[in-house]
Amino acid sequence: MLKTEIEYDYILSALGRRLRPNAIRKLTKLLGSKEVISLAAGAPSFETFPLEELAEISARVIRERGQSALQYGPTKGQGALVEAVSGILQSRGILDSKPAQIVMTTGSQQGLDLIARVILEPGDVALVELPSYIGGIIALHNAGAEMIGVRQDDGGIVISDLKEKIDRVRSEGRRLKCIYTIPNFQNPSGVTLEAERRNELVDIADEHDLLIIEDDAYFDLYFTEDASRLVPLAALRPDRVVYLGTFSKVLAPGLRTAWLRAPEELAEKVELAKEGADISSSMLDQAIVIEAIREGLIERRLPELRAFYKIRCRAMLDALGRFAPAGSRWTEPIGGFFILMELAAEADATAMLPEAIDGGVAYVPGQPFFVDGSGANTLRLAYSKESPETIGDGIQRMCRVFQNAKAQSKA
Amino acid sequence: MLKTEIEYDYILSALGRRLRPNAIRKLTKLLGSKEVISLAAGAPSFETFPLEELAEISARVIRERGQSALQYGPTKGQGALVEAVSGILQSRGILDSKPAQIVMTTGSQQGLDLIARVILEPGDVALVELPSYIGGIIALHNAGAEMIGVRQDDGGIVISDLKEKIDRVRSEGRRLKCIYTIPNFQNPSGVTLEAERRNELVDIADEHDLLIIEDDAYFDLYFTEDASRLVPLAALRPDRVVYLGTFSKVLAPGLRTAWLRAPEELAEKVELAKEGADISSSMLDQAIVIEAIREGLIERRLPELRAFYKIRCRAMLDALGRFAPAGSRWTEPIGGFFILMELAAEADATAMLPEAIDGGVAYVPGQPFFVDGSGANTLRLAYSKESPETIGDGIQRMCRVFQNAKAQSKA
Repeated sequence: MLKTEIEYDYILSALGRRLRPNAIRKLTKLLGSKEVISLAAGAPSFETFPLEELAEISARVIRERGQSALQYGPTKGQGALVEAVSGILQSRGILDSKPAQIVMTTGSQQGLDLIARVILEPGDVALVELPSYIGGIIALHNAGAEMIGVRQDDGGIVISDLKEKIDRVRSEGRRLKCIYTIPNFQNPSGVTLEAERRNELVDIADEHDLLIIEDDAYFDLYFTEDASRLVPLAALRPDRVVYLGTFSKVLAPGLRTAWLRAPEELAEKVELAKEGADISSSMLDQAIVIEAIREGLIERRLPELRAFYKIRCRAMLDALGRFAPAGSRWTEPIGGFFILMELAAEADATAMLPEAIDGGVAYVPGQPFFVDGSGANTLRLAYSKESPETIGDGIQRMCRVFQNAKAQSKA
Repeated sequence: MLKTEIEYDYILSALGRRLRPNAIRKLTKLLGSKEVISLAAGAPSFETFPLEELAEISARVIRERGQSALQYGPTKGQGALVEAVSGILQSRGILDSKPAQIVMTTGSQQGLDLIARVILEPGDVALVELPSYIGGIIALHNAGAEMIGVRQDDGGIVISDLKEKIDRVRSEGRRLKCIYTIPNFQNPSGVTLEAERRNELVDIADEHDLLIIEDDAYFDLYFTEDASRLVPLAALRPDRVVYLGTFSKVLAPGLRTAWLRAPEELAEKVELAKEGADISSSMLDQAIVIEAIREGLIERRLPELRAFYKIRCRAMLDALGRFAPAGSRWTEPIGGFFILMELAAEADATAMLPEAIDGGVAYVPGQPFFVDGSGANTLRLAYSKESPETIGDGIQRMCRVFQNAKAQSKA
């Protein structure tokens, strides 16, 4: 159980634009006064942070290379790190990944912000999944994009709906620029794009000259034996895909170290935009990540990280199977951090949140993830942060609140 | 003598928009092939980094508080750091500096970028000093601002020119939003705004309802006995000034940790913009800075830092006095990192740069710092990075190149 500042940030940032100030104050008060089981924050468990190794590495890089690790550095990132990322990308099948195509960013969020600023002008249309990651939606919004949602089912983006939305936007004479997608263990839905649809998606992007922004933050955290179906869109169509990856989920998110890989000309524009945005990301964080890669610290821990999150996912699925109210359904992820739960059509996940927090459990209502305003009966459940037992308890508490609300609405 | 990636970045980012690709290639080749004395990069000397202390602190914060120092954190910055910055601001006379008015940023550059995005719409006019910091110019440009330059003399912004420019912009019916200023030891000019002009400046801002963006990156690094004249504009008019400060120059710039202080309503908007820009700055960097403040590491080193840079400034001024070609003049800073040199009217500092680098010394041509395209005969000299002896050698080498160019143009 955790009670941290970050819970506020997550829930309030999701809800901030939907709730009235007094509702926010009420929620904040509740969150501050309770020991709440957190199924809200999409953060890795701190149990996965290799503290001793990182403490040792950080002291060493400062002592041995502090003259560069504490100095201003190149905007695109430290050379050794860019080279290492180039290797990671190639290992994922994205062969066209030269250092000139890579820019290190202050978390993937900055990559989303920069690419949006570089390619979009106010009024341009961006297609996003229904639901989609709020941070991606905010970045597109801040760059002036109008967003159109494309339906997902358990196999990811629904291709027929994608075609329909493209045709509609085109017929209205609007400028359609890009598709933002999270093909693997999507945030917040947990679904993974089917292999066949990956090919269809890049074909459609070709046909309509669209850029694909592929956010692959969770790639390494799969639970399946057969990871070959996770092939990045950037591996299929490198000249049309901007690919984002991060060390946040496999090492530590507080080291704000992620990357963006794009066709070279676009990568240069992103680098220029980053120069104006923050000159460079933390040099110390980058130096630490370089060492962690060199020493095999990241690679070697992946099997245990996969097992760690798989157990928690299983615990959540089991608890949902036992406690979920009739008429609800949920996704079954093969990786990542999230399950999307869908309650009966008339349920309102935002309205029930204060009661859930009062009952000792927090989740993120799903509606803010849907750019078309739908999804009021959905919620995002993160199994990444709590222990399997606590996850079970949290789901039980939450479902009790849902059952009560249902009973009351019928009374 | 140093030959680092960062030299490229500094010079090329300054010149990138002015030079043709083959000129850039030539410069890059020169920089890569020479041991060059760097009077270009505006970076603190790595000799000032307290390596042992920071190595020890970083290992300790990861071991003892890694669960938060390596986790996602609040967008506005870690609570303890925001509190500490509130104290720093009050010690500078900016009494109206509550935590709710402060946002920690990924370097001051991010503060500039965020405030520009928050307050400006395309076509809005921003007033900037002639010359001004390129990073500030880029941030304003990226937010769609049209920039009008205001003259500086040895006492900073020339108030009569400021009034004239405001009247002109107003008479043209354009939307004038803000003034961007660096009152102390300006980058690149090295000049400091006179005390009387500070009062006049905030009065004018009141009169015309303008926001002042005050970039005070060098505040602590004064060489004068009487620092009372450095009073921040934000101390004079807290409701009208966005004040930017940083730990980059007094601790280490690779720890990308700076702050923005604004009227509360504006600070909230900046926080929201930052959420979309990078979620948060490096949590580890912030945790290290908190400890450095708590232990007095920053405060205790200030006297020696001031002495360190004062000696280098003196060395550069002495060398200029000995070697500068007739008809040139330069500023005499009372703090900070920079001297602006002005050559005879017909000289072209950009054209002479390749020869200077070939002669073993690098500087940044001044023209890119002037938004009106003037300043071709100026250059920025940084005394922050090299030893006093090397600075003397560098100035001698540079002045030899200038003398030769002068002799040739007369021949």
